[in-house]
Amino acid sequence: MSIEVTSDSTHAALRALAEQTRELMDAVAATDADDAELIAVTEEVRALTERLARARRAKAEVGHPRWLMGNAVVGAANPFAPPIEIEHVPGGGVRAEHVFRRLHEGPPGLVHGGVSAMVLDHLLGVAVGAAGRAGLTASLTIAYRAPVPYGVPVVLTAEHTRSEGRKSWADGRIAHQDGTVLVEATGLFVTPTWFPRTG
Amino acid sequence: MSIEVTSDSTHAALRALAEQTRELMDAVAATDADDAELIAVTEEVRALTERLARARRAKAEVGHPRWLMGNAVVGAANPFAPPIEIEHVPGGGVRAEHVFRRLHEGPPGLVHGGVSAMVLDHLLGVAVGAAGRAGLTASLTIAYRAPVPYGVPVVLTAEHTRSEGRKSWADGRIAHQDGTVLVEATGLFVTPTWFPRTG
Repeated sequence: MSIEVTSDSTHAALRALAEQTRELMDAVAATDADDAELIAVTEEVRALTERLARARRAKAEVGHPRWLMGNAVVGAANPFAPPIEIEHVPGGGVRAEHVFRRLHEGPPGLVHGGVSAMVLDHLLGVAVGAAGRAGLTASLTIAYRAPVPYGVPVVLTAEHTRSEGRKSWADGRIAHQDGTVLVEATGLFVTPTWFPRTG
Repeated sequence: MSIEVTSDSTHAALRALAEQTRELMDAVAATDADDAELIAVTEEVRALTERLARARRAKAEVGHPRWLMGNAVVGAANPFAPPIEIEHVPGGGVRAEHVFRRLHEGPPGLVHGGVSAMVLDHLLGVAVGAAGRAGLTASLTIAYRAPVPYGVPVVLTAEHTRSEGRKSWADGRIAHQDGTVLVEATGLFVTPTWFPRTG
């Protein structure tokens, strides 16, 4: 595994740029600027894209400090990532609080069911990892009980339920802050032979 | 339903801005610019965000021409959306070809399993809609057979399998161009009473 030296200040600058880019994405999805302004801003965004593309970093390998920063769900340096900030719950399991955005819309005013599935897949994987059984998703089942709103905080929780050999199962859910369950998930994860052991 | 007048040129300008913003996101996730440049670009992105935020459009209602343009999976005017471009297959079913990006990474070099789940949820819903049975996802099961690479085209297909009352089922998959199936999905969709009838 090759570890490039990345300073804390570079990490912070990458996180800040990704976060500001998320705000730009929100503004793009909501703007009512006139055509001339849309075209002018597009040209400015193109110029910034070219500035950033002049130096391109190598893809980070597993275990590299930058790897999870680029992750599609939790990557602080990845503008596509919401990002979900997951904490370990004392006694077991994982938890995240998140405010989804208009960008995540499926049905009008509501979070896209696919976005709920996306974040639950990751959360269940982290729950399995937290139990020392890191693995990739083999199967995932999502049950949609009620619509998930955006613009207000919802709570995501998950926990490892059992393991057999290289297989592990986890359950998780998205709920309102009062505990009302909106979406439930259960997943089977398999530890690949090439994965670093976590427990 | 209120229909605001949006010209073709505004649609085109919004699509172009969203597409350029996606390229910026790709560049942000891959840049190796130094700290000073990262900070300078962040400030420029902030200024563009403020320009776009000066005029904010109302949220689009179901059936509005802008509604699907903002969708998290297929929305051409939504930078978060990949976006998947879905076509109807003569004789039934739907199909999309897509090149996922580094932004969609989960395991190193591979598309995040949650991203696969996200796009399959939408694709199955469209397959149900194409059969005149539009609905929201009630449950979704994903089976991960092999890793999905990014940077190369993959093929997504789905078809409605049956309906009973307001319930409809659909199957779908992500495959290599040679037909090798990588991810399979099956979903149950329920037509809400408030949905516009499509068939």
